[in-house]
Amino acid sequence: MELLDWNIDRKSHVPLYLQIASLIKDKIEAGEWTAGSRLPSERLLAAELGVNRSTVTAAYAELTAEGLTEGRRGGGTTVVNNTWTLLAATSPPDWNKYVRGGIHSPNLPVIQEINKAEFVSGIIRLGTGELGREFYPAALMRTAMDKVARELDSLGYEEPKGNAELRLQISRHLGKLGITVTPESLLIVSGSLQALQLVSIGLLDRGSTILVEKPSYLYSVNVFQSAGMQLTGLQIDKGDGNFLYKLEALQASKKGSLLYTIPSFHNPSGRVMSMDDRKALLKISERHALPIIEDDAYRELWLDAPPPPALKALDKSGSVVYTGTLSKTLSPGLRIGWIAGPEPVINRLADIKMQTDYGASSISQRIATEWLASGLYEEHVSQLRTKLKEKRDFVLSLLEKEYADIAEWNVPSGGFYIWLEIKKDLSLNTLFGKVRQSGILINTGNIYDREDRRHLRISYAFESNERLAQGLMTLAEIIRRLP
Amino acid sequence: MELLDWNIDRKSHVPLYLQIASLIKDKIEAGEWTAGSRLPSERLLAAELGVNRSTVTAAYAELTAEGLTEGRRGGGTTVVNNTWTLLAATSPPDWNKYVRGGIHSPNLPVIQEINKAEFVSGIIRLGTGELGREFYPAALMRTAMDKVARELDSLGYEEPKGNAELRLQISRHLGKLGITVTPESLLIVSGSLQALQLVSIGLLDRGSTILVEKPSYLYSVNVFQSAGMQLTGLQIDKGDGNFLYKLEALQASKKGSLLYTIPSFHNPSGRVMSMDDRKALLKISERHALPIIEDDAYRELWLDAPPPPALKALDKSGSVVYTGTLSKTLSPGLRIGWIAGPEPVINRLADIKMQTDYGASSISQRIATEWLASGLYEEHVSQLRTKLKEKRDFVLSLLEKEYADIAEWNVPSGGFYIWLEIKKDLSLNTLFGKVRQSGILINTGNIYDREDRRHLRISYAFESNERLAQGLMTLAEIIRRLP
Repeated sequence: MELLDWNIDRKSHVPLYLQIASLIKDKIEAGEWTAGSRLPSERLLAAELGVNRSTVTAAYAELTAEGLTEGRRGGGTTVVNNTWTLLAATSPPDWNKYVRGGIHSPNLPVIQEINKAEFVSGIIRLGTGELGREFYPAALMRTAMDKVARELDSLGYEEPKGNAELRLQISRHLGKLGITVTPESLLIVSGSLQALQLVSIGLLDRGSTILVEKPSYLYSVNVFQSAGMQLTGLQIDKGDGNFLYKLEALQASKKGSLLYTIPSFHNPSGRVMSMDDRKALLKISERHALPIIEDDAYRELWLDAPPPPALKALDKSGSVVYTGTLSKTLSPGLRIGWIAGPEPVINRLADIKMQTDYGASSISQRIATEWLASGLYEEHVSQLRTKLKEKRDFVLSLLEKEYADIAEWNVPSGGFYIWLEIKKDLSLNTLFGKVRQSGILINTGNIYDREDRRHLRISYAFESNERLAQGLMTLAEIIRRLP
Repeated sequence: MELLDWNIDRKSHVPLYLQIASLIKDKIEAGEWTAGSRLPSERLLAAELGVNRSTVTAAYAELTAEGLTEGRRGGGTTVVNNTWTLLAATSPPDWNKYVRGGIHSPNLPVIQEINKAEFVSGIIRLGTGELGREFYPAALMRTAMDKVARELDSLGYEEPKGNAELRLQISRHLGKLGITVTPESLLIVSGSLQALQLVSIGLLDRGSTILVEKPSYLYSVNVFQSAGMQLTGLQIDKGDGNFLYKLEALQASKKGSLLYTIPSFHNPSGRVMSMDDRKALLKISERHALPIIEDDAYRELWLDAPPPPALKALDKSGSVVYTGTLSKTLSPGLRIGWIAGPEPVINRLADIKMQTDYGASSISQRIATEWLASGLYEEHVSQLRTKLKEKRDFVLSLLEKEYADIAEWNVPSGGFYIWLEIKKDLSLNTLFGKVRQSGILINTGNIYDREDRRHLRISYAFESNERLAQGLMTLAEIIRRLP
């Protein structure tokens, strides 16, 4: 049996014996170690891997407990052929055929890798678009949960559009942001990605063209592509004037079905669309009857001054469907976002949401209601801004010191992201791999624009300052060493 | 202006003035009352509707606050034309076109009606597949939430397959039910409907044929049809021997892609597949390489004796993908379910779940973990069984008294449902409408089998005994009066 390539991580919090058991399981499942094979002797494997024999003994016991192997008195441990885990790969039905089939495309390999690696303990996540632990409002959350727990006298399904009290609170909250929306025109969703998912299957025909900024967060998800649609990207590097010009030209020739935009603290570029450009964009939308999905996830995370009003607030013709979320300001773990739009649109999307998952978590909705109704949310977001601004400034000063010779970057006035442009073309996938080997995870520009060869999305929101400094210094060294 | 058909519900908890405002809003949005129209004078409308004038004043004020109307000094109230709510129906873009488009089919009209009517206050819901308020374990839930609130120190996204501790707890829980599953082969989903949604877009090609019992819960959702697949139903009325025979015959000629089954306490028929039939079904599945989705939502709700082992527990060839949920035993409001299956299948579905909504609510997952880990869940389910059995017996005795001449029914040994067969053919949609007018909501058999003209799904789980008695007596009268 081949023992090469056994990748054991001594720093991991996963016990060694479980790592070893898992590696063996992989080999059995991949059909590499077939039924009837003997496992290497415990002594031999222990020596090969440089671990105690008792560790290997524990790993084998685990496999036997799972029914994958059998220990035989004096005869070592043998792979047996009688559990579904073992047989899944080779027996009828051919699940692999099913896994390769399916309508929905898999995530980009690099995204799959990121999704998994994010849970590898110790890894430094330089690109993660999520508030770090230091921002988690534990005490306030306890207050909110206590209140909900005390008052809850049932916990059934919610109305198709979501909990009525939550929709009222969100409509008031949006009112404060200058956006007038009735509770009836709001749909609660499990985060704004689901909003896009519902739009894709609820409002658009297969073959539709989705216009989008380039780079864009939208390129990192398959939501429209999986529904048989294509993205047409309009470069925003050179400012929005250019973007609008291209949009107008494109609409004049070939019609897009929908524009997806993040006008405020754009992900990943951080740009804020100016008031004039917002107005111009709405005019184009009206002229060409082009609906707009406005993703306003970052609006409240302004650090220097509030951004211009949302497109939705300026829209007098009902062109804009608006999405918002608590994931960026409070906690992605609640999985609470919303869509606001014309009522027939919201009714349609609510019906599809019911068919997809019967609505967002009721307990999450109740907790979110409490945050908004009690004023805890506003208090929290205001504190958050101060702390987040400090972290932004910390990272910017780090970049000044370590990156001036190798990169350029914007100074974001809100949101989470610095869009770092490296001063030479390089293979971003190679960079990702090298950096990963040093225990660092980066979000490379090609996630947001397939042709990109120069950018990284740096987030100052997730890691501690110490780890940001450590990660960014190592990253700079690796970039310098690349040809 | 036409004032006919104004449907005001004086028993509703929605204040009258809001009901009136809402009716006017409907007319404006439907384009019935266009910009520039004057609303009827407050005095006239009050007289017409038989309400106080102050109620109409409040309704008009509400509309004006929403920007839909303007009060003019001495000139009454006029519809104005400057808000998106008003313009959505008529302005560019034509959202109605988008709403009619879209890949996903709308829910059946009767289901849409049920989804909405369930939140009409006072309505008696005779078919609702959900535990009623009397079963809500308020004290235990407070205990679980308190523990989670105290211990929570962050609340981010979870791993792609879901919270690791929850998967461990579920794998242990399933172990007690005789189902051996590792945490790596489990995916946490937002209820078992989402499990089906993921299977439909993750594992199957467009044009696939899904085999299913007839009647079946599956006919009440569009999940496979919306993904371009068709259902082929195999009647189970005459027992499973017949069902299996047809399945075998069908597979020999034209291949189905997948079988969806609820072997234990079937929804809606309540039947339990015998041990012999389970074994026979698995043999058919192996012979024809036909994968099975086993929906085991009701297993723990046995009232007389536990059902035979799950197909998943008997399956030695990896044919079965298994779904379970906390919605039926604990609370649908948590939106927590799971899929267990071969690891490559689970990996694929987890990747798609990440692309759909970034995972189930983290707070729900933590609370579910606490329920399972603490033993609260087992304690609760065991109490639940006793109470649910009493309710079943109560409804059965009611039926004996009131329905013996007009219907037949099964005695379910678990789950929520009695499958009531009326002794004459009738239009179930007419019955639904008549019963609805008496403030009662029923789940008609044609929801679960389009051709059905005789059945109702009666649930003893949701309403109080008093309301069950009242609803069932009214229903019997209405059935008797039908031609």
